[in-house]
Amino acid sequence: VNFASDNAYGVSAPILDAITRANEGAARAYGADEITKRVEAGFAALFEREVGVFLVATGTAANALALSAVTPPYGAVLCHEEAHINVDECGAPEFFTGGAKLVTLHGEGAKIAPESLTAALDGLTPGNPHQVQAAALSLSQASECGLVYSPQEVRALAGIAHARGMAVHMDGARFANAVAGLGVSPAEITWRAGVDVLGFGATKNGALAAEAVIVFDKARAEELMFRRKRGGHLWSKGRFLAAQIEAHLQDGHWLDCARHANAMAQTLADGIRRSNVARLAWPVQANEVFPILPRTVHERLQAEGFVYYEWPGTQPADGKIGPDEVMVRFVTSFATREADVERLLRTLRAG
Amino acid sequence: VNFASDNAYGVSAPILDAITRANEGAARAYGADEITKRVEAGFAALFEREVGVFLVATGTAANALALSAVTPPYGAVLCHEEAHINVDECGAPEFFTGGAKLVTLHGEGAKIAPESLTAALDGLTPGNPHQVQAAALSLSQASECGLVYSPQEVRALAGIAHARGMAVHMDGARFANAVAGLGVSPAEITWRAGVDVLGFGATKNGALAAEAVIVFDKARAEELMFRRKRGGHLWSKGRFLAAQIEAHLQDGHWLDCARHANAMAQTLADGIRRSNVARLAWPVQANEVFPILPRTVHERLQAEGFVYYEWPGTQPADGKIGPDEVMVRFVTSFATREADVERLLRTLRAG
Amino acid sequence: VNFASDNAYGVSAPILDAITRANEGAARAYGADEITKRVEAGFAALFEREVGVFLVATGTAANALALSAVTPPYGAVLCHEEAHINVDECGAPEFFTGGAKLVTLHGEGAKIAPESLTAALDGLTPGNPHQVQAAALSLSQASECGLVYSPQEVRALAGIAHARGMAVHMDGARFANAVAGLGVSPAEITWRAGVDVLGFGATKNGALAAEAVIVFDKARAEELMFRRKRGGHLWSKGRFLAAQIEAHLQDGHWLDCARHANAMAQTLADGIRRSNVARLAWPVQANEVFPILPRTVHERLQAEGFVYYEWPGTQPADGKIGPDEVMVRFVTSFATREADVERLLRTLRAG
Amino acid sequence: VNFASDNAYGVSAPILDAITRANEGAARAYGADEITKRVEAGFAALFEREVGVFLVATGTAANALALSAVTPPYGAVLCHEEAHINVDECGAPEFFTGGAKLVTLHGEGAKIAPESLTAALDGLTPGNPHQVQAAALSLSQASECGLVYSPQEVRALAGIAHARGMAVHMDGARFANAVAGLGVSPAEITWRAGVDVLGFGATKNGALAAEAVIVFDKARAEELMFRRKRGGHLWSKGRFLAAQIEAHLQDGHWLDCARHANAMAQTLADGIRRSNVARLAWPVQANEVFPILPRTVHERLQAEGFVYYEWPGTQPADGKIGPDEVMVRFVTSFATREADVERLLRTLRAG
Repeated sequence: VNFASDNAYGVSAPILDAITRANEGAARAYGADEITKRVEAGFAALFEREVGVFLVATGTAANALALSAVTPPYGAVLCHEEAHINVDECGAPEFFTGGAKLVTLHGEGAKIAPESLTAALDGLTPGNPHQVQAAALSLSQASECGLVYSPQEVRALAGIAHARGMAVHMDGARFANAVAGLGVSPAEITWRAGVDVLGFGATKNGALAAEAVIVFDKARAEELMFRRKRGGHLWSKGRFLAAQIEAHLQDGHWLDCARHANAMAQTLADGIRRSNVARLAWPVQANEVFPILPRTVHERLQAEGFVYYEWPGTQPADGKIGPDEVMVRFVTSFATREADVERLLRTLRAG
Repeated sequence: VNFASDNAYGVSAPILDAITRANEGAARAYGADEITKRVEAGFAALFEREVGVFLVATGTAANALALSAVTPPYGAVLCHEEAHINVDECGAPEFFTGGAKLVTLHGEGAKIAPESLTAALDGLTPGNPHQVQAAALSLSQASECGLVYSPQEVRALAGIAHARGMAVHMDGARFANAVAGLGVSPAEITWRAGVDVLGFGATKNGALAAEAVIVFDKARAEELMFRRKRGGHLWSKGRFLAAQIEAHLQDGHWLDCARHANAMAQTLADGIRRSNVARLAWPVQANEVFPILPRTVHERLQAEGFVYYEWPGTQPADGKIGPDEVMVRFVTSFATREADVERLLRTLRAG
Repeated sequence: VNFASDNAYGVSAPILDAITRANEGAARAYGADEITKRVEAGFAALFEREVGVFLVATGTAANALALSAVTPPYGAVLCHEEAHINVDECGAPEFFTGGAKLVTLHGEGAKIAPESLTAALDGLTPGNPHQVQAAALSLSQASECGLVYSPQEVRALAGIAHARGMAVHMDGARFANAVAGLGVSPAEITWRAGVDVLGFGATKNGALAAEAVIVFDKARAEELMFRRKRGGHLWSKGRFLAAQIEAHLQDGHWLDCARHANAMAQTLADGIRRSNVARLAWPVQANEVFPILPRTVHERLQAEGFVYYEWPGTQPADGKIGPDEVMVRFVTSFATREADVERLLRTLRAG
Repeated sequence: VNFASDNAYGVSAPILDAITRANEGAARAYGADEITKRVEAGFAALFEREVGVFLVATGTAANALALSAVTPPYGAVLCHEEAHINVDECGAPEFFTGGAKLVTLHGEGAKIAPESLTAALDGLTPGNPHQVQAAALSLSQASECGLVYSPQEVRALAGIAHARGMAVHMDGARFANAVAGLGVSPAEITWRAGVDVLGFGATKNGALAAEAVIVFDKARAEELMFRRKRGGHLWSKGRFLAAQIEAHLQDGHWLDCARHANAMAQTLADGIRRSNVARLAWPVQANEVFPILPRTVHERLQAEGFVYYEWPGTQPADGKIGPDEVMVRFVTSFATREADVERLLRTLRAG
C-alpha cells in the first residue's frame, strides 16, 4: 500500500474515460481544439472572471512558466526555503526566468512568516543595481507540510508583495486539497486575496498529466503563449490535456477527489492521535500527515510493505525528534482506500 | 477529412489500451516504474546496442533537450533553413542550449546539401573567439518536404560533422515513416551511419503525447536527466509516457502504423500523377505529398471540406509554381482511411 | 603601417590626458561620480533631448545590452546577414537576450534592403506561438562595408519596424564616422529618424575602451541598470569610462577624429581610383575602403609590411572578383597619417 | 577622506604610466598583442606553473566567467551567504552559468564553516534529478569581513569539494591583500591548496579596471575564450588591460600596494583597540576594519567628513551590537595615507 505521494496512483475513472472519448475523429492541433476552448470557459466560470489559461503536463512546467511571466532575469522570487520550486525542481524557475534568483524565507510548517518576507525585502533595495530586484512572491497552497494559507493570510502576504510592486504566484500542485480543506471558493483564495498567477494542479488529484497556469492579469498572459511553446510544453494533440481538465472540473470531480483525499488524511491523523504511539508534527489541513514515529514502529510498517518517505525537511518548532524517532510523511489521494488506512493504523498500533 | 498533419487524429487503439492497462495500482513515480524500465530495454533491443532513453511528451522538447546535450551556449547548430527546429519551435533550441545559434543551410527538398554544410563550416573557424563554434549538425528524417536521407547520405554528412568534432542530431518526428520508407533497420540509419542523438517520435505516429530522446553515447546522456527535469519534462506519473512507447514498439506496431501512412501517401501520389490535374513538387518517400494544384482544384477541395495546408516553404528547384497554381501539403497517418484518399482523388479529378 | 582596423592604434592625446586628470582624489564608485553625471548631461545636449546613458567598455557589450532591453527571449532581432552582431560577437546578443534569434536579411553593401525586411516580416506572423516574434531591427551605421544610411533610409526602415511594434537599434561602433560622412546632426540620424536605442562607439574613434548605450525611450532604460551590472559591465572606478567619453565629446573631438579618418579614407580611395590598378567594391562614405586588387599588388603590399585584412564577406553586386584578384579592406582612423596613405598608394601603383 | 572602499581612489602611478607607455604605435587587437603575451608568461611565473589567463575589466565579470566554466546550468555553486557573488552582483553568476543556483552556507566572519559545507552537501544527492547538482565551491579570499583562509583551511574545504567532484573557485578581488596578510606564495594558497580557478583582482589594488581569471586546469580554460567574447568582455585594444596587469605584477608592485593597505588597516585597528572607544568585530587580517562604534562617535566622524559604510551584514558571533552602537567598515588601499588614518583616529578618540 502506497502512501509515498499523491502521484503514486494513476488516473481517476472519469478522467480516463474522458481521454478515451476525446479520441474521436480529427481535431485542430496545438490547443485550437473545441475541448480546450471549453476548458478555458470552464476556468472563467470557476474563478468568476476572465482568466488566461495555459495547459501543460507537469507542475514544474506550470510553476516555472508562471514565474517566468512575472520575473525578469535580474529579478528575485521570494519563497519558503522548503518550497518545491526551491528544492525539488532542479532549478526550473532559474531556467525559465533566464537566471533569476530564489530568495528563501522562513516560517513554521513551510508557510512563509510575514516578518520573514518583510525582513528579506528590507535587505533588497529597489533600484540598487548590485542586487536582484524583488519581483515575485511564491506561496505553496497547500504547503510542503500540508498546511494551508487562509484568505486572510494570503491577503496579508500579497499586500506586502504588491506594495513593492511584486507579483504573487501560487503553486497549486495541491490547490484542490487546499480549497477543500479551507472550504472557500477558488476566487476567494486566489485573485480576490491578491494572487496574480496560479498553477492549478490536477495530476496529483487524479489526472494523468495535466496542470493549468491560470493568469488573472491577462496583460501578463500573452507572452506565456510563446514561452510555453519555446519550453516544449505545447502539445500537438492538445485535446488530450484539455480532456483531462474538463473531466476534472466536471460536476465538481476535482473537489470530490480532494475531499476524499483530505478525509482519508483526517482518518489517518485521528487514528494516529488516538493511538498514543506517535504524535503529529503539524495539524492536518489537506492530504498530508507527518507523524513522528518510534523507529520500531517505522520498521514494522516498512516490514509490512507500506511505502512512504522519511521526511528530510526541517523539524516542527515544538516537536523535537528524539534519537529513537523518525518523522515520516503519509500522503493520501483520490485513490486511497479506507481499508488501507485502517490497515496502516492497525499495523502502527500493533506494537 | 483531415490531411493537415499527422497530429490531427488521435491515438491508435493499442496505445490507448496500453494507457488504460497501465492504470492498475501504484507505481514508482518519475520514471522509476517497471514500464519505463521495459521501454529502456526495448530501445536497446531495437537499436542493437546500449542507449540512453529519455521520455518526454513533445517533439520540440525532444529536439531541444537533445541539442542542449551536445551544444554549448557559444555553439552553433547547423541545420536546414526549413528545419522544424529553425522555423517552428519558437526558439526552443536557443532556450535549452542557453543561447546557441542556429546556422542555416540550403538544399533541395529540405535536405541538407553536403556542399552547403562544407561552405558554412568553411566560414566558421574553430577557436576563433569572435564566432560561435560549430557543435552540432541536425538532420530531419524525414525532411520537412517528406524526403528521406539514405544511410549513405547520413554517413556522408555525419562524416563532415565528425571531422570537425561536431555531434550529429536526428530530428525523428517522422522517424518511423523514414525507416518504413527506406526499408532499413533503425540501427543502420542512426548510429551505424553516425547519428549521436535521436529524437524518436511517436506522437505523429499514433501516440497521445510521447517521444524519446535516444542517446547513443551514454557519456552524453547523464546530464539529460537533469535538463529534462529542469525543463519541466519529467512526468510524475511516468508510466503513462512509457506505456505509450511500449505499445508503440510492441510487435512492430510503430512500423505498421508508419507503413500504412506511407502506403496511403503513395496511393495519393499515384492518383495525383495519373490524374494529369496536378504534379508533385518532390518524390513521396514517407507520408507527405506536396502537389502543385491549379487554384480551381484547390478551391474545389476546400469547398468539399478537405482540410490541409497551403505550403509556404521554398519552391521545388525544378517546379516553378504559376500564378494560377498553389502548392499544398497532404499528410497521411496511421488513421488515414483508403476511402478518404479515394474521395480526395475523385474530388481532385472532378474538374 | 596598419590599416587592419580602427582599433589597431591606441588612444588619442586628449582622451589619454583626461584619464590622467580623472585620477585625482577619491570619487564615488559605480557611476555615481561627477564625471559620469557630466557625461549624461553632455549626451542630452548632443542629442537635443533627455536620454538614458549606460557606459560600458566594449561595442559587443553595448550592442548586446541594448538589444536585451528591447527583445524578449522569444523574440527575433532582424539584422543584415553580415552584421557584426550576427557574425563577430560569438552569440553575445543571444546570450544577453536569453536566447532570442537573429533573423538575417540581405542587401547590397551590408545595408538592409527594405524589401528584404518586408519579406522576412511577412514570414513571421504576430501571435503565432510556433515562431519567434519580431522584436527589434538592428542597423549598423556605418555598415560593415563602410556605407551609411541616410536619415530617409533610416526612417523608411524604422517605419516598417515600428508598424510591427518593433524597436529600432543602431549599432554605432562607427557612428562618428557615419555622422561625419553624412553631415547630419546626431539627433537627425537617430531618434528623429526612428532609432530607439543606440550604441554610441568611441573605442574605434580614439578612446581606450568606452562605448555608451543611449536609450531614447527612458521607460526602456531602467532595466539596463540591472542588466549592465549582471553582465559584469558596471565599472567600480566608473569615472575612467566617463572621462574618456567626456574628452571624446569635448569641443567636437569625436567629430574631428572621425572627419580625419574619413578624409584619409577619401584620399586613399581617390588615389586608388586614379591609379587604374584597382577598383573599389563600394563607394567610400565613412572610414573604410574596399578595393579589389590584382593578387600581385596584394602580395607587394604585404611584402612591404602593410597590415590589413582580406575581406571574406559577400562580393559587391556589380563587381565580380576574378581568380587573380583579391578584395581587401583598408580602415583609417584618427591616428592614420597622410604620409602612410601616400606610401600605401605609391606601393600600390609601383607595379 | 574616503574609507568607503578600495575602489574610491584611482590608479597607482606605475600603472597609469604603463597605460601611457602602451599607447605607442599599432598593436594586434583582441589580446593578440605582445603585452598580453608577457602577462600570460608573468602569471605562469608567479604561480610556478602553466595557467590559462583571461583578462577582463571587472571583478563581477571575472567571478561570473570563472564560475560559468565549472558549473553547468543545472549545477549549484556553494558559497557563503554574504559572498559578493551572492549579494552584490545582481545575479551575474546565475546569468553567466545559464541559471545555476547559489546555495548559501554559514560561517563566522563570512568564512565558510566546513560543517556548513558538509551539511549542505548532505542535502544534495548526486544524481537526484530533482535537485541541482553541486558543481563549485566558491571561497572569497579575503572574505567580506576582511578575514583570510589559511592554506590549511583552503585545503580542508577544497578536499570536501573535490571528494564530491566539485571545482573550487576563489574570488580574489582582494587576493593581494590576503597573500600579503598570510605571507604565503600565490601558488601555496591557490592550486597547491586545491583551487581550480581564481579571480585575480587588481582593480581594488591600484589598477584602473583590470582583473584576471586564472585557470589552473587548462582543459577547463579553452571555453572561456568564447564565453569572454560572448559576455562582451574581450577588449579590442586589449593591450591596455594587459599593461595594467603587467605594471601591477612588475617588481612586486601588487604586493607593495597590498602591504601598504594592510599596514594602514593594522594601524587603524591598533589605534581603535587602544582608544577604548570602540571594539573590533573581527580580527584584521587584510585591509578591512570593522569597528563597533558608539553612535555618537559615528556621528562625529561623519560630521568631520569621513566617508565609509555602515555595515549591514550579519553581526559577529561574540559581539552583540547595542542599540547605541553601529558597526561600520573602514577599507584601506594602496592610496590610503598614514596622516588620514591618524586623523581618523584622533577624531574617533576626540569624544
